[in-house]
Amino acid sequence: MVQIEEDILGKNNQYAAANRQWFAEHRMLVLNLVSSPGSGKTTLLTRSIDDLQQELNLAVIEGDQQTSNDAARIRATGVKALQINTGKGCHLDAHMVGHALETLQPDNNSVLFIENVGNLVCPAAFDLGEAHKVAILSVTEGEDKPIKYPDMFHAADLMLLNKIDLLPYLDFDVEQCIRYARQVNPGIKILQVSATTGEGMDDWYQWIKAAQMLAAIGQ
Amino acid sequence: MVQIEEDILGKNNQYAAANRQWFAEHRMLVLNLVSSPGSGKTTLLTRSIDDLQQELNLAVIEGDQQTSNDAARIRATGVKALQINTGKGCHLDAHMVGHALETLQPDNNSVLFIENVGNLVCPAAFDLGEAHKVAILSVTEGEDKPIKYPDMFHAADLMLLNKIDLLPYLDFDVEQCIRYARQVNPGIKILQVSATTGEGMDDWYQWIKAAQMLAAIGQ
Repeated sequence: MVQIEEDILGKNNQYAAANRQWFAEHRMLVLNLVSSPGSGKTTLLTRSIDDLQQELNLAVIEGDQQTSNDAARIRATGVKALQINTGKGCHLDAHMVGHALETLQPDNNSVLFIENVGNLVCPAAFDLGEAHKVAILSVTEGEDKPIKYPDMFHAADLMLLNKIDLLPYLDFDVEQCIRYARQVNPGIKILQVSATTGEGMDDWYQWIKAAQMLAAIGQ
Repeated sequence: MVQIEEDILGKNNQYAAANRQWFAEHRMLVLNLVSSPGSGKTTLLTRSIDDLQQELNLAVIEGDQQTSNDAARIRATGVKALQINTGKGCHLDAHMVGHALETLQPDNNSVLFIENVGNLVCPAAFDLGEAHKVAILSVTEGEDKPIKYPDMFHAADLMLLNKIDLLPYLDFDVEQCIRYARQVNPGIKILQVSATTGEGMDDWYQWIKAAQMLAAIGQ
């Protein structure tokens, strides 16, 4: 069983390396958005696209077990979007993403958002070739999630603490949540946002723009 | 022997995690500059400091087995610099860097350059808590270095191909060198520079500024 798992991950890492080389050569910024179901990923993404698409060249890959509802929501913003249905699979893998790129054909210097299947376990182990995993945690989920799902928060470079407009109505300790996140990942960056009210979203946009600048420089 | 090595690296990783948390909390960008001896690291660094110190808050940690010549060269630019002598050691470690920070006291939002001991092997294994390892390879060293020292080029996010002003006088295949670097690290960014003539240095400065912006955002 362990052997099979290692073989699958080894194969995935080869495809991820090929994707990463392709992204580097095309000077693209690729963000892998991971979270539990209902954290507000798609709402956050559609708002981000609305606010950024005048400035940045954007594209989206949507991962879901079934339905293409999310890709339809994204396409309504006017941005290129492709849905991958994973069927029984609980995560995207690098091979699926490689195939999606052939169809999607994102532009050089663009920003590609990959919205992974809502799941705090499986997507942590599967590198897609992205520059950064971005973990979205909503304050309705409880502050202990980083230590309950340490692999995911260890793998992420940025945590977006979402739905902060609901903090007044919840018993959620923001500082404790941040301490937990740093416990599993000392260098993780943390931004507090509400995709509904827009609070804190400018910091997220600045972060994306800086990361895109970084990705666009060099051979 | 393997056990001892694992213990040493495990201990180092704990110190590196503490450094990384400290850097994140202080929103600092930390770059670990690695290369073989004579690649032009210190010249590259002094020129970069001269050109960037009006715009960015800079500090330097210099690693050498003996002498404090390099720190003196850096201090002549007007920037805070601290020398660490590693004695018999062929690399800096995270514990040394942690102690250096207490003395150096770099500012929030600053950029800290750590110039490692000139060595293409040992520094690859020792995380210092940096955001990026930057490998400097001079074209006088031959294009095969990335595949001869794969750990180092695998660990680096950026490769600066230095001394390109000497290319007309050498039999050095730039494209082959880039292919070798991508072979061991598909996502590595590559910039061609000459710290002597200044060619290509603006791209390096843009890369630093974008990375600094990224580091300065978030909690």
